[in-house]
Amino acid sequence: MTAVTTEGGPDFVPAAERIAVFDNDGTLWCEQPLQVQVLFTLDRASAMAMADPALAQRQPFKAFLDHDMAAIHALGKEGVFEFAFAIHAGMPVEAFQDEVRQWLASARHPKLDRPYTQVVYQPQLELLAYLRANGFKTFIVSGGGVDFMRAFAEHVYGVPPEQVIGSSVKTELRETNGRFQLTKLAQLDTFDDRAVKPANIWLHIGRRPILAFGNSDGDQAMLRYTLDGPGRRLALIVHHDDDTRESAYDRDFKLSPLTDTLDRAAEFGIHVVSVKNDWAQVFPPAR
Amino acid sequence: MTAVTTEGGPDFVPAAERIAVFDNDGTLWCEQPLQVQVLFTLDRASAMAMADPALAQRQPFKAFLDHDMAAIHALGKEGVFEFAFAIHAGMPVEAFQDEVRQWLASARHPKLDRPYTQVVYQPQLELLAYLRANGFKTFIVSGGGVDFMRAFAEHVYGVPPEQVIGSSVKTELRETNGRFQLTKLAQLDTFDDRAVKPANIWLHIGRRPILAFGNSDGDQAMLRYTLDGPGRRLALIVHHDDDTRESAYDRDFKLSPLTDTLDRAAEFGIHVVSVKNDWAQVFPPAR
Repeated sequence: MTAVTTEGGPDFVPAAERIAVFDNDGTLWCEQPLQVQVLFTLDRASAMAMADPALAQRQPFKAFLDHDMAAIHALGKEGVFEFAFAIHAGMPVEAFQDEVRQWLASARHPKLDRPYTQVVYQPQLELLAYLRANGFKTFIVSGGGVDFMRAFAEHVYGVPPEQVIGSSVKTELRETNGRFQLTKLAQLDTFDDRAVKPANIWLHIGRRPILAFGNSDGDQAMLRYTLDGPGRRLALIVHHDDDTRESAYDRDFKLSPLTDTLDRAAEFGIHVVSVKNDWAQVFPPAR
Repeated sequence: MTAVTTEGGPDFVPAAERIAVFDNDGTLWCEQPLQVQVLFTLDRASAMAMADPALAQRQPFKAFLDHDMAAIHALGKEGVFEFAFAIHAGMPVEAFQDEVRQWLASARHPKLDRPYTQVVYQPQLELLAYLRANGFKTFIVSGGGVDFMRAFAEHVYGVPPEQVIGSSVKTELRETNGRFQLTKLAQLDTFDDRAVKPANIWLHIGRRPILAFGNSDGDQAMLRYTLDGPGRRLALIVHHDDDTRESAYDRDFKLSPLTDTLDRAAEFGIHVVSVKNDWAQVFPPAR
């Protein structure tokens, strides 16, 4: 840190260029047994099927309603998230965020039995704060839906909406009662994963980050893109190897595996952070 | 200003929500005789035709090379900008920005005879600084190319790249000599004009602005979207009515006319700023 913040030093980076990017699911908060937005979608799909029972017989609704993990995993990360995005088509963007906030206020993690906003990683909260205290601008770059994440990222991570980049659907400007309102469409805009992450970083930030933190193969392109710039660079992944305090998983998590990036971390110059060995505390103290 | 910055007051807006958005061409800098990026494209097209004479016979190259204003205007704003974007396909994004910076360092405005970075509007520079001094975050939301604007916006306007939103082409992550590099493609991503502006504001900022400044019908959706939120709001347009100090134009400027927005400004609650009557100085002192 001293190297990039010491003015006049050989590795000095002006504050404006101190860009740090973080994946969200599995990097800033827990993504087991499924990504939080998928669990949210599951509840939402149940509510929709109650209102319209015919839905319950249709795939992929049925898979979600039956908690059929094999079928859900078979959809793949993009398939699952596309379903999650599509079922909110027709909602004004702000109404969607209100629904997310209401759900987060009452839903609890099935294993850890605490609100999802408290299954965030304590060491990462400290790292975000440390980076900002040293003039870094911290961004989230995640496959999760951008409107979903923005509903809590400012409050929970201290990351304002304009520094949250994610997957998105197209929106349409509609005039209702003489007022302009943006409404979510079913059509995917970008699925912010793999090679799309660097492209979205450029579109939204316009600079190559100097620090990137991820936890899956979906982050590899972002991590390597970050390392490929000039000057001092840092890329890290969380390796979830602690089944006591959290969940141990990597290459077998179908919805977002960590395989190649773990195997070739040293080759790429990516630091591997072990939850078991490197994190004194995993979650914040219970409130 | 006091109303939104006075804590405890009825109209107080927390600093995080003080979002101001500005169009660029014709709002922050001069767009006559043509938008600066179109003039840049004209020079670039000439250079390409020198290297490959067959290009000179092809439209729309021919129109640009012949300075055929009727033909250029006939393309429309989106057509002209699409051409501007497409001719840089295949370039790494950073190389494109280097080219823009080199061009800006030597090119001069044909009528005002000064660098384009000095045909920015002095009152707007003061307004940007005033807003930032009062806790506002200032964004550019323009039909211009995002990479083009980011090449000078931080230096000239004090607006960092991550606060510049514009039209964009798709980019592709390519590996060259083992290094990841984003390359511009010919395919348009978004043309950031009219109803697309609010959609891009939501995608990039995730909040409805409380202040918006534009100068053409292309800004009307953004201005009205801004006004349609709750609480104190401000929307303004520059009306270019000073042919002595700048150029007087509005409804006849084919590439970006101001017609309906001017005619219905009072109805929409949009303030009209007259260059002739309201601006003591138009451009910064010559350097």
